[in-house]
Amino acid sequence: MIEELIVTIGFDLGGTKMHAAAVDAQGNVLYSERQKTEASGGADAVIERMVGLVARLRQEIGPRGSHISALCVGVPGAVDSERGVVDKAPNLGWDNVPLGPRLTSALGIPVFLDNDVRVAVIGEHVYGVGKGARTMIGIFVGTGIGGGVIVGGHTHHGGRGVAGEIGHMTLVPHGPRCSCGRRGCVEALCSRTAMERDVRKLIKQGWDSKVLKLMRKEGRDDLTSSVIERALDDNDDVMRKVVKDAQYHLGLTVASLANVLDPEVVVIGGGVTERLGERFVAPIREHAYKHFLVQRDREKVHIVATELKDRAAPLGAAHIARERLAGRLDSAPGARHGTASWPVPSA
Amino acid sequence: MIEELIVTIGFDLGGTKMHAAAVDAQGNVLYSERQKTEASGGADAVIERMVGLVARLRQEIGPRGSHISALCVGVPGAVDSERGVVDKAPNLGWDNVPLGPRLTSALGIPVFLDNDVRVAVIGEHVYGVGKGARTMIGIFVGTGIGGGVIVGGHTHHGGRGVAGEIGHMTLVPHGPRCSCGRRGCVEALCSRTAMERDVRKLIKQGWDSKVLKLMRKEGRDDLTSSVIERALDDNDDVMRKVVKDAQYHLGLTVASLANVLDPEVVVIGGGVTERLGERFVAPIREHAYKHFLVQRDREKVHIVATELKDRAAPLGAAHIARERLAGRLDSAPGARHGTASWPVPSA
Repeated sequence: MIEELIVTIGFDLGGTKMHAAAVDAQGNVLYSERQKTEASGGADAVIERMVGLVARLRQEIGPRGSHISALCVGVPGAVDSERGVVDKAPNLGWDNVPLGPRLTSALGIPVFLDNDVRVAVIGEHVYGVGKGARTMIGIFVGTGIGGGVIVGGHTHHGGRGVAGEIGHMTLVPHGPRCSCGRRGCVEALCSRTAMERDVRKLIKQGWDSKVLKLMRKEGRDDLTSSVIERALDDNDDVMRKVVKDAQYHLGLTVASLANVLDPEVVVIGGGVTERLGERFVAPIREHAYKHFLVQRDREKVHIVATELKDRAAPLGAAHIARERLAGRLDSAPGARHGTASWPVPSA
Repeated sequence: MIEELIVTIGFDLGGTKMHAAAVDAQGNVLYSERQKTEASGGADAVIERMVGLVARLRQEIGPRGSHISALCVGVPGAVDSERGVVDKAPNLGWDNVPLGPRLTSALGIPVFLDNDVRVAVIGEHVYGVGKGARTMIGIFVGTGIGGGVIVGGHTHHGGRGVAGEIGHMTLVPHGPRCSCGRRGCVEALCSRTAMERDVRKLIKQGWDSKVLKLMRKEGRDDLTSSVIERALDDNDDVMRKVVKDAQYHLGLTVASLANVLDPEVVVIGGGVTERLGERFVAPIREHAYKHFLVQRDREKVHIVATELKDRAAPLGAAHIARERLAGRLDSAPGARHGTASWPVPSA
């Protein structure tokens, strides 16, 4: 098929929702749809729903449906992209799930897997705030903190293929316990989970706050981005202090990375940023700039909020599918020859 | 001239001594010599001594002296490699010195400038512990802490050309004051200067230690690598504690960088490492591995002591001179076309 006509699907597989987009060679989204993941139903049921969603996309884009030539899934966890296996995705409750081969055999097209944050960083790089950047860093603040690094215009995978774990840089030695078991990681200080821990701690210490009431009102027992926004709008002291601390620590993290990598763009993404935008990023930028060793031209390091928001991952994934199909992503382990290494039935 | 016959000079310009080597295309050192820098004499006098040292090299290698085609200087400070100017080199007391044009006009060959640590990292990459590594990190522990990053087999310069400042990652927010004016930088915790500060503090607090006596015995008022070694050999409690703390913090730094960049090689260099070798690096490696997020194949990240020691910088510089001459270092700002941008008289 002529390369220009090829359509690829970018699939963002989240713990709560899945979001797939059929994208043409120019980056136009021909059709996209979100559905609930319903991860509690188990891997088989989720994969079935994924296949169904792809079928919907195929149908919706009409005759061009036959041009769909590859799919890339951004997975919230660790993937073995060579074998097409999801090693571990805690939000899905998945361990060692051969997602690639399963989807390939159901859909009849090559399927590639990558980490969801890496995929979103590529989305911002190709279609969003990072267009044309040679060095770029992505930091995604959610229940955890994910990251991605682009160097020389390409995703940096590293020797073992596990680069980008910005959330697990140590920021405060002997600091608060992290989900990874260590202490003082960026994630243990700045994630939504860390913010919730600090909110509860302050309230326990006697601070007055409406946050718990707002959470109940939403029928949730965790601190969502929308609760954070409402509490800030209400000038809730606890929320303000906790967000301020997270911004300070994120600023230090951005500065440390900037001192080492001197990027052109640092994109801050994830749910909190999608909702608060510049209001969340401005103080991060300010703290970061203060901690740059070289102050000259510091504004050339653009520290910005995500532009594509939740479209970053599907757009990035669709781009990866296209590139891998064409064998161009030679920096990715396992993608050197542009083919998946599990059997791909002829389409 | 046939490229294989070209000889280049790598010049390590230190605050105390200068070290130049004439190197052939295979990386053989044809002749090298060390001299005192005598920086107190001022920039003019130092440049004159540099020209004299190059003349010595030319003479010493006999007929091949006429094959010397380029020179690269590793400078202990910030350089504008495009203009050939040393922006700031505190150890030399230099501000805005046009070293490149001055040497070029005296020697009649192209002269390139780079930071001394970057140059040493390239030396280790091309001829030392980092041979063949695609991703590599260098950390040099001296009076300060310098760093260098190699990605995709090339030195990473970053958007403003100031990448590699590992010494100024924040490791302990609100920690001890750093030479850069901020607090808690890696340099403020792990450099020789930081170690000396901690030694003096502990002694003031009443700890028993021979370190000050050893310093006086050497006729120095600062903590040299050889004093550190002697004190450790003596099982001096203060020295042991201080070195242990520095190793712990260096381990965290290596782990943070490894979590983000997943390198194949991390080389630890600088005076302390040159003297103590594996004795200094082993605990750093141990702490680092403990703080890797991904434990799988962690030994594939080789954390090692410098192999080339004080030859790393001249060898790296000679390599850079050769590459820039051939126009191959296109990732370096200003070196895209392989020429210095100040006038080069015909040799």
